[in-house]
Amino acid sequence: MVNTLSTQDLANFEKIFHPQRVAIVGVSAEGFGFGSNTMMALQTFGFKGEIFPVNPKGGTIRDLKIYPRIEDIPGEIDFGIIAVQAPLVPKALEDLRKKGAVGAEILSAGFKELATEQGRALEDDVKRVAKTGIRVIGPNCFGIYCPKSGLTLPPGSEYCNEPGTIAFLAQSGGMANDFIKAGKWLGLRFSKVVSFGNGADLREAELLQYLAQDPDTKVICMYIEGVGDGTAFFNTLKKTAMKKPVIIYKGGLSEAGNRAVASHTASMGGSRMIWESVLSQANAVKVANSWEMSQAALAFTLLPERSFKGITVAGGGGALGVTACDTAEALGIHLPMLKKETQEKILSVLPKPGSSALNPIDVANPGVPPEILREVLFSAAEEESVDLQILIQLLYQYKAFRRGGMPMKEATPYVGIAEMSEEIREKTGKPVVLVLPNNVQGEEDIDIEEVRRAARTLFLEKKILPFENLPDAFTAISRVNRYYERREVMKG
Amino acid sequence: MVNTLSTQDLANFEKIFHPQRVAIVGVSAEGFGFGSNTMMALQTFGFKGEIFPVNPKGGTIRDLKIYPRIEDIPGEIDFGIIAVQAPLVPKALEDLRKKGAVGAEILSAGFKELATEQGRALEDDVKRVAKTGIRVIGPNCFGIYCPKSGLTLPPGSEYCNEPGTIAFLAQSGGMANDFIKAGKWLGLRFSKVVSFGNGADLREAELLQYLAQDPDTKVICMYIEGVGDGTAFFNTLKKTAMKKPVIIYKGGLSEAGNRAVASHTASMGGSRMIWESVLSQANAVKVANSWEMSQAALAFTLLPERSFKGITVAGGGGALGVTACDTAEALGIHLPMLKKETQEKILSVLPKPGSSALNPIDVANPGVPPEILREVLFSAAEEESVDLQILIQLLYQYKAFRRGGMPMKEATPYVGIAEMSEEIREKTGKPVVLVLPNNVQGEEDIDIEEVRRAARTLFLEKKILPFENLPDAFTAISRVNRYYERREVMKG
Repeated sequence: MVNTLSTQDLANFEKIFHPQRVAIVGVSAEGFGFGSNTMMALQTFGFKGEIFPVNPKGGTIRDLKIYPRIEDIPGEIDFGIIAVQAPLVPKALEDLRKKGAVGAEILSAGFKELATEQGRALEDDVKRVAKTGIRVIGPNCFGIYCPKSGLTLPPGSEYCNEPGTIAFLAQSGGMANDFIKAGKWLGLRFSKVVSFGNGADLREAELLQYLAQDPDTKVICMYIEGVGDGTAFFNTLKKTAMKKPVIIYKGGLSEAGNRAVASHTASMGGSRMIWESVLSQANAVKVANSWEMSQAALAFTLLPERSFKGITVAGGGGALGVTACDTAEALGIHLPMLKKETQEKILSVLPKPGSSALNPIDVANPGVPPEILREVLFSAAEEESVDLQILIQLLYQYKAFRRGGMPMKEATPYVGIAEMSEEIREKTGKPVVLVLPNNVQGEEDIDIEEVRRAARTLFLEKKILPFENLPDAFTAISRVNRYYERREVMKG
Repeated sequence: MVNTLSTQDLANFEKIFHPQRVAIVGVSAEGFGFGSNTMMALQTFGFKGEIFPVNPKGGTIRDLKIYPRIEDIPGEIDFGIIAVQAPLVPKALEDLRKKGAVGAEILSAGFKELATEQGRALEDDVKRVAKTGIRVIGPNCFGIYCPKSGLTLPPGSEYCNEPGTIAFLAQSGGMANDFIKAGKWLGLRFSKVVSFGNGADLREAELLQYLAQDPDTKVICMYIEGVGDGTAFFNTLKKTAMKKPVIIYKGGLSEAGNRAVASHTASMGGSRMIWESVLSQANAVKVANSWEMSQAALAFTLLPERSFKGITVAGGGGALGVTACDTAEALGIHLPMLKKETQEKILSVLPKPGSSALNPIDVANPGVPPEILREVLFSAAEEESVDLQILIQLLYQYKAFRRGGMPMKEATPYVGIAEMSEEIREKTGKPVVLVLPNNVQGEEDIDIEEVRRAARTLFLEKKILPFENLPDAFTAISRVNRYYERREVMKG
């Protein structure tokens, strides 16, 4: 069972995520090894507090004195990062606690995940010390990434340092690293990420409970291999999901996946049936992989907090329209017919023949300029049945249209499209979502990819949701819809 | 009903796809318009026969005489391309027939798809002329792309001119254009592509019948909005799919999609249930969109013609392994456990800790060099239960590993990986499939994308199947498996 977090618990969590004085245990003067790498990662990333390296051999590293023992550090410390060999970990943890640390992350491996007697015994020792008054993240983990305080994972010297509102919990350090890295260019901005590995002390239920009340966190993502206390987790999940979206990617639901989970983070995977039912009852947002998780997180972050019942799709090419409809229906997205007057208004500005205003709106020519698209989207936005509009832009088409050797970035009106989309959202309150497929990916067409990335960066700056393809857009939006609709029902 | 193709029918089809003398009706001396564009596309693409432009105004274009009337062309012609206004089409078709043409493609729109009385009447006229001895592709279409003879679609001046073994049938010209264009960099090489638009005469059933016996075609792809004669199509499909894989993307299965189909190519979409059942009975390979179609076509083309029961997955990072297993199970792919001896052999060459040889094989470090991967894959290939191996290469990781300012192309051992994969396939008869995800797509990381494309090009040259992600690989391979396994059963 997880009890409600006390004021003291909350204060400790705040200190763990935003420590002022951090000891890193296991930093060698030679600068090799996990501890040293992590220290350098913190410095490069821009950790805002003080760092106290520890190693029995002493010496200095990057102008910092290395303390032979934790007790040699002057004054109290807030948080410890432990990167010494497994057998030395329980003592280090004990010493950190005595120095006033309210928490520590244990990066070292060599515990329960080995499935040996010694490994299990060492993990029990860690648990025992944790109970005496220091909260533990790990062992066998990558710890905390928190751009606000400047904490980062060992491979995280170049992570994005702009804070955001997405939290991510994962046992797997690799998964945390991948998600943060991909998030940088995908436009995901994080409040807190925790890789908690074996989860000897702090794990999914309690961390989730903290994130539920964390004002910096609006959307929570989780990659789960297995949970410690199922009942506690389910209760916390249910409460949390009533407050903010919790997006869950459950790994290891297959037989072979379960096998891989056991050797990866010493967890039990659990059956697919139980998970499906638990997640559904709690109104968690269930995703099938980390890509879907990223797309859903982006949609929850950049869209207003509500569901979007009526959606238009505009783009060039009739088959695109057919595809759009089929995909929409499969995902429970409604593409309402537009009124006769609206159709006529739209058709009056589009090239003929080939255009259609039935929804999907076929603009006939993929090179229709932003001024015309603006008219089309404004007309559609006037209809009450329309809540959100999706615009498909095949940027590669502009390569064929440009005159002479004009660079793709000049030939492609992505700035105009961004400004127009922003204007429509601001004036009508109805978001415009961009879909930017890249169907031309030859070696000689790298300039198209460059423009696509520049366009995506600009859209993100303007808080316009960008997707790579229509199914991704529909899938993410349908998840947003489902979450808010069910939450309404559950609130009763 | 479709009857068996006669020797004469076959000869005519051969002439239609490989004409020596082609009339293009509706070419203006000023070089504007659909007809002129198509003529220029044929010339740029490299059409191997003679072209005879036709326009009542006469004149010359690009040093070619423009004939005022079709009958003014000296000698017989094989094939006509019609791009005049709809009301002038039936007469042009008639004149082409009189000039000996066995077939014509009508690019012009303005027929049945308008849903007007005049449009329908004109389409009936076209049908009537077609019955007198000239086969018609279209109207409202993009016609034929056939790299062997040099025929191409109107927007196809820069299509790939290397012939291959994939045929593609689509009513939609846009879909045909997109698929050929994407195929260029995806590695799809075509025998014949036909966009037949409204399909007034030749359409899916008869074209499929021709492709079934076409020795240049090994794999058939179809995008279907609606069919003319359902029974004829189903019978032909069933027979064809016993000979070669027929991959079908059926558009317009939703209510809104059906609506879009009607305005796009004047077809009736048909219900989802009926289609699912028909395609399944015929052992057609059903795909949900054109991306899946491309991935399946590539797999059918580059893999040996059989099913692959036991598959290994190798890559770096434990969570990757979990994901792999879950996805595999969902798609009916079997990842067999490796024997104890094989596991030991594999683990002996991999970095520790963190590696695992359970299958998925976790190579622990994403930078493991090709020589080591070679040992791993050879060891796994020795097991009888293994039929195919998937290797995941996160090329972006090499950016972190390189020393100094070394360019990504030098830092990334993709040549070694390609040679190693080829060697394993040649020596063991078991294919190696590469998965090249790009999880780092920031504007500043365009060099990673460049390497990825260069790697994909090289893999394709060596007939090594490349995918962008593991679900795509599993999906495509499971389709190959299912097709060959069911065909065996159906052969009884």
